[in-house]
Order: sequence, then structure tokens, then C-alpha cells
Amino acid sequence: KINGERLWDSLMEMAKIGPGVAGGNNRQTLTDADGEGRALFQKWCEAAGCTMGLDTMGNMFARREGTDPEALPVYVGSHLDTQPTGGKYDGVLGVLGGLEVIRSLNDLGIRTKHPIVVTNWTNEEGTRFAPAMLSSGVFAGIHTQDWAYARTDADGKSFGDELKRIGWRGEEPVGERRMKAFFELHIEQGPILEAEGKDIGVVTHGQGLWWLQVTLTGKDAHTGSTPMDMRVNAGLGMARIIELVHTIAMDNQPGAVGAVGQANVYPNSRNVIPGRAVFTIDFRSPDLAKLDGMRARLEAEAPKIAADLGLGIEIEAVGHFDPVTFDEGCVSAVRNAADRLGYSHLNIISGAGHDACWINRLYPTAMVMCPCVDGLSHNEAEEISPEWAAAGANVLFHAVVETAEI
Amino acid sequence: KINGERLWDSLMEMAKIGPGVAGGNNRQTLTDADGEGRALFQKWCEAAGCTMGLDTMGNMFARREGTDPEALPVYVGSHLDTQPTGGKYDGVLGVLGGLEVIRSLNDLGIRTKHPIVVTNWTNEEGTRFAPAMLSSGVFAGIHTQDWAYARTDADGKSFGDELKRIGWRGEEPVGERRMKAFFELHIEQGPILEAEGKDIGVVTHGQGLWWLQVTLTGKDAHTGSTPMDMRVNAGLGMARIIELVHTIAMDNQPGAVGAVGQANVYPNSRNVIPGRAVFTIDFRSPDLAKLDGMRARLEAEAPKIAADLGLGIEIEAVGHFDPVTFDEGCVSAVRNAADRLGYSHLNIISGAGHDACWINRLYPTAMVMCPCVDGLSHNEAEEISPEWAAAGANVLFHAVVETAEI
Ligand SMILES: NC(=O)NCCC(=O)O
Ligand SMILES: NC(=O)NCCC(=O)O
Repeated sequence: KINGERLWDSLMEMAKIGPGVAGGNNRQTLTDADGEGRALFQKWCEAAGCTMGLDTMGNMFARREGTDPEALPVYVGSHLDTQPTGGKYDGVLGVLGGLEVIRSLNDLGIRTKHPIVVTNWTNEEGTRFAPAMLSSGVFAGIHTQDWAYARTDADGKSFGDELKRIGWRGEEPVGERRMKAFFELHIEQGPILEAEGKDIGVVTHGQGLWWLQVTLTGKDAHTGSTPMDMRVNAGLGMARIIELVHTIAMDNQPGAVGAVGQANVYPNSRNVIPGRAVFTIDFRSPDLAKLDGMRARLEAEAPKIAADLGLGIEIEAVGHFDPVTFDEGCVSAVRNAADRLGYSHLNIISGAGHDACWINRLYPTAMVMCPCVDGLSHNEAEEISPEWAAAGANVLFHAVVETAEI
Repeated sequence: KINGERLWDSLMEMAKIGPGVAGGNNRQTLTDADGEGRALFQKWCEAAGCTMGLDTMGNMFARREGTDPEALPVYVGSHLDTQPTGGKYDGVLGVLGGLEVIRSLNDLGIRTKHPIVVTNWTNEEGTRFAPAMLSSGVFAGIHTQDWAYARTDADGKSFGDELKRIGWRGEEPVGERRMKAFFELHIEQGPILEAEGKDIGVVTHGQGLWWLQVTLTGKDAHTGSTPMDMRVNAGLGMARIIELVHTIAMDNQPGAVGAVGQANVYPNSRNVIPGRAVFTIDFRSPDLAKLDGMRARLEAEAPKIAADLGLGIEIEAVGHFDPVTFDEGCVSAVRNAADRLGYSHLNIISGAGHDACWINRLYPTAMVMCPCVDGLSHNEAEEISPEWAAAGANVLFHAVVETAEI
């Protein structure tokens, strides 16, 4: 078994970097705080006897040598970046859970045949630079590195420049590593495990996703002196499309979600009718036909809403992945580990995207989930118990060690 | 007649300060650019032989002495502050039109019996610090100075601190000046004069206004892994209330307007269901019953929308004035001046709020309006012709000089 107390202490230590305003974290990707978090992780890995690799996307790879250095490594990990008002566990548990696997092997004096590599994937959250899972996506050949470098944040700063600025752009070409398998431990970020009273989620599938960005163009005008019939109100168009997104998601129940997360009107002044609105749409479903159907309906109906109001409209797809089926062998390794350790478990579908979804396209992959209080995530109040964290890390430990062979 | 070319040159010179991004201006109140604009205006007034007064709200008063220094002065003026993406004429024409009255009197060697004072009222726009017409409102006893000083902008900076910071907080107690009359020249900011082919609007009334600010409180949560029925989506509530505002305004046609100008969701992240939304509502009508009815309906129906979604709601009134009827004598002076000069004219109702609306509560007041292209204002593309500006300033000149007596 792993050392649950040490794992928890490390989680709390990492959470001191990039504190939020309400007990959580704001350690967004490629900020100074992200750089500090990386440095702390590297220090811990080196103290545990690992060597650190760093690729040109800033992905970090802490390697513990195996008895057979030619054997393909088993990878574990997740991400250290957070939402602007994020929790202390989303992503971090998977990285530090991986480190705890190595620390525990050190404690026990066990050497595996296959090397074990703990990974911190850059910009998983995708909130500062869309899309999410950007660097595991480049690793998996989904995006080119040039395209990724050119992603910009709301201030127009580019991913490439910011990666260089914080000093975490490595030399190693991205995507050249080969893996025996990849395991990711993550909090559920949904309510099912807690509601069902289960210790462990055995993740069999992941939802697919479409991220769209909509720009409506109307005409800035005075809110007082412009007659109603002369208005070209981009804010009103945005409101109607927010309602449409909700309707589309509700019409696809069960097994689909949809919402607008970012919403900005311009010039954003009390007495100016918004002449421009820019907002993002997030549609998800584990069912490919539903997922693509939601996007298609939005793209058919939103332009009608815009035309009714005299607005120009542009809809851009800024993130996408199809529903995922994880590797049967790796999923079994997770389920067997939970059984062996006596934890109750449930097959579940991941509602969120994860780096594991991209790596699964290349190498056998699976995920371990643990419950989180009220299913709350992407919220500073995100909470888990030390027992849940330890159970998840124990299952990770057993699945990894079984795969890495003693 | 005034010197139309000199007036136009001064308008263009002032527009160089705080340029916008699309040919207009961003010279928001109490910014450094506002300070620069004030300094230029003061320089011009002193060159025209005026003395400058400055009160504790930063209102500027450039005085040209009369032959009877005991006689109550006639005031003219408007405001030099602009919207974030504002035009070159909104407000500025009224201030520089007033200066042109004085310059023209100097050219002609005319001395009036009553002194003439040109005023620049601080923070008319109300976009950075709500409400609009803040400092003419304090002058008129509508707000206390302490309350005004405590208004904050989106960054939490207070009006009082910013006024001091830019160096334009005077010593003169606000509101002690007495006036024979007040005249304000302004662009229409609406489409009527241009559509009717009239040179001059004789402003008989002004619309009343309610500015409300709504805060909805839900719960930040993951857009992917939170089931639809567990969401408390403040962005969806905002969308529904934006639609409600539009419906209320349409149900009160003709003679009413309504829109949401500012709209912000938090944390404003692609994959976070907004846990908070803050937005502003602007309702106006020249009809008091309609105006108050629109607010009452919003306050009755918006809480139901919030309750349906499980959202908390707070509605705060952040700006208000009743419909205005301007002084009959001053309005006649404007109409007579237009007739005397041979300009076509029309009685109109101001769609926008103006400093004249507050001063009208204390002293006889009227406004002169000139057309603007396409009725467009609060837009960098706001445009007028030099001829329109000159016609408006000529009418102002005659109305003021008649009132100030030669
Ligand atoms: N796990 C997680 O929240 N990832 C961010 C990408 C997503 O929104 O699903
Ligand atoms: N004239 C003008 O635009 N004033 C700002 C206050 C308002 O919105 O009416």
C-alpha cells in the first residue's frame, strides 16, 4: 500500500502555490505559479531518485529506471495546471499519485522490470489556451506543435511565447516516447461514485466533446436614444443562443450536456447596446451521434437567431474529441487491483476530458477515479477525503506495478 | 454668427486626446486622458480671457465677466468625458460650443450684462462610475458628495481617489453657484432630426431612466461531468433576463426602450458552468408610468426566473431620473433663435440623459440638438457635419446672448 499521509501532505504543499480566493487554486497554465508548481514537482521527483525529461511542449517526464532498461516504460500522470477558480485535486492528484507510486516502490525496495515514468502534461485545462489537453494532443499527433504554439489567451499572448517565458520549454522532440501503457488517476468531477457509495470508479469510456466559439457582430449604439427597431443587439443574440444551447442539451437527455462557460459583450458599457459578443459553447456526450447532432443543430439554428436580429455570426470549432473507449487490458488491471484491495467499485464514463483520452489513441490506457464531494469540480470548493485519495492511489499503485512487472 | 471653422478645429484637436481604436475616443472619466482634455480646455478658456473655477467634484467653470458683475450668470456646457468606444462629439460639442460662444463674443467685442460661464461636468457618461451625470447630480443635490466619492469602477477604484489622482479635485464647495439659466448643446444621438431633414432639435422633454444591476448566484461546476439536473447556471439565468428586458421594452412600444449593456459571467472559463453573473439593465421612457412599470415588471419576473433555476438574485437600482420637462422660457429662447437664424427645427424628446436634466431641477434650463449620422452614438463611428455643428452653436449663441442681455 502507498503512504496516504505523505500523498495528502504533498497535495496540501502543492496547493500553496497559486492559491485561489476561496480555498482552491488559480495556477493556470504557463503562469509564474505554474512554473513554481513544476519546480516543486521536479524537486520531489529528483529526491525520489528520478531523472527528469522535458519536451518542447513543456511536458515533464520523471523516470524511475526498471531492471530491464530496454523494456517499454509504464507511464502514469495527469496535469498540474488548474482553472482560474479551480480545486486542489483536479489533475494534481494524478501527478502526485504517480509520484507516490514511485516513493512507495522506493520505501518497499521494489524494482520493476519496466521503467515507470510520471508525467505532468502541459495545459490540460484549456481555459487559458483552448483546446483542453493541448500538449497530450500534440504528443498524440492530433495537433501540430506550430498550431499549438500559436494558440493565444484572452490578452493575445501565445502559448509558445508563454512556455518560453516561464522557462519550461524543453529540447526533447514531442511525441517520440513509446509506452507500454498509460494510467491516469483523477477525481470523478461528477456525483455518481459518492451517490452510489463506491470507493473507486473503473473508467471504461469517456464522453466526446465539441467546443465552439461564437462571435456575433451587431452595432454599438446608445441604449437610450436608439429606437428598438434600429437596434442590432449582439447581447440579445448571445442570450438567445445561450438558451438554444440549453434546449439542445435538454432535448438530448439522458447522456448529453451543454453550456456556455465564457461570455463577453463589447464594449461592455451600461449605456451601449453591445455591438459584439464572443462566447464559448461546450457540448458533450458519450454517444457519437448525439454529440455530432448537437453541434449540427447549433450550426443550423444559431445563424437563424442571428439573421432575425440582423447580426453577423461566425462559429468556430476550437476543441473536439470523439467518445473514447479505454483499453480492455488496462481497464481490467484497474478493476482487478480494486478487487484485490477490497475496494467497492463501479464502471463509469468520464464526463470530463483527460490526457488519457489522447494517449489512449496511441497506447493501452485506462483511468482510475475516486469520488469528490457533491460532484463539485472546477470550483475552489472542490473537496475529497484523504481516504478517497489513498484508495485511488493504492489502485493506481497495484495496476501500475502489475503492468510494470516485478 | 459663430466661427464654424474654429469650432470644428477645436473639436478635432480635443479628439486627439484619448484616441479610440476605430476613429473615435476613449477618454473615460478620471483617466489620465480626461486630465489632459481638461488641461487643454482650461488653456483655451484662459486664452479667451476667462477665469477658471473648479469644485470638489471636478466640475470646471470658465467665466467671462458681464457688465453687471452682480447679475446671475448664464451657464452653458456639457461634458468632455467619453464612452470606452465613444464618439468625438457626444458632450464635447456642448463644451466647445460654449467656448465658441465666448470666443465669438470676444471677436465681436460684445459684452453681455450677465456673466457667461462654460461648464465641463465630471462623469456624465456613467460607464466607468455609475450613475451617469454624477457630478451635475451632486451639484443639484440629488446625490451626496460622500456617496459620489465612494462610487467604484470595475477595478474597485473609487471616484474620490481617482479625481484626486488626476489632480482635478478643486476647493470650491459643490452646488453653491446660482444660475440665471443653463443651456446645453448636444448631438441628438438618435435618428429623428436626420430622417426629418431638420437642422435643429428644440428639446422640450427628456426620457426618464432606471438603471438596475443584477447579480445572480449559482454554483461553479464542471461543464462536462455535472449532470444537467445538478446545474445552478448563472449564465443561463442571465440569458433569460436579457430576453425578459427585451420583452418588457417591446411590450411598452411605442415610447420605451430597454437593453442590457454590461454582461459578465464568472469565472468566465470555457469548461466551467458560470457560478455568478453580474449585468446591467437600462430602461427608459418619457412616460413616468411606463418607466416605473418596466422596472416593477422586471423586479416581479426576474426573481421567478432565478428561482426556477435555483439561483440567488439581487437587483440594485444604480441610476434613476424621472422624465424631464424643460423650462418654457428657455425652450422658447432656443426656438426663437432657430427661427431668427432661418434654421428648420423640430420639437424633440431627448432619448439620452444629460447634465441639463439635473440642472433643470434648480434653474431654468433648455437644450439645443443637432443631427448625427444614422442616429449613431456611443460608437466610435459617431459622425456629424461641420455645418450641423455650426448651426447648433449658432442657435446656442443666440439663445445665450439673448438671455445674458447685451
Ligand atoms: N478534467 C478536466 O476537467 N479537464 C479539462 C477538460 C475538460 O473540460 O474536460
Ligand atoms: N448623453 C449621454 O449619452 N449621456 C450618458 C447618459 C445616458 O446614458 O443617457
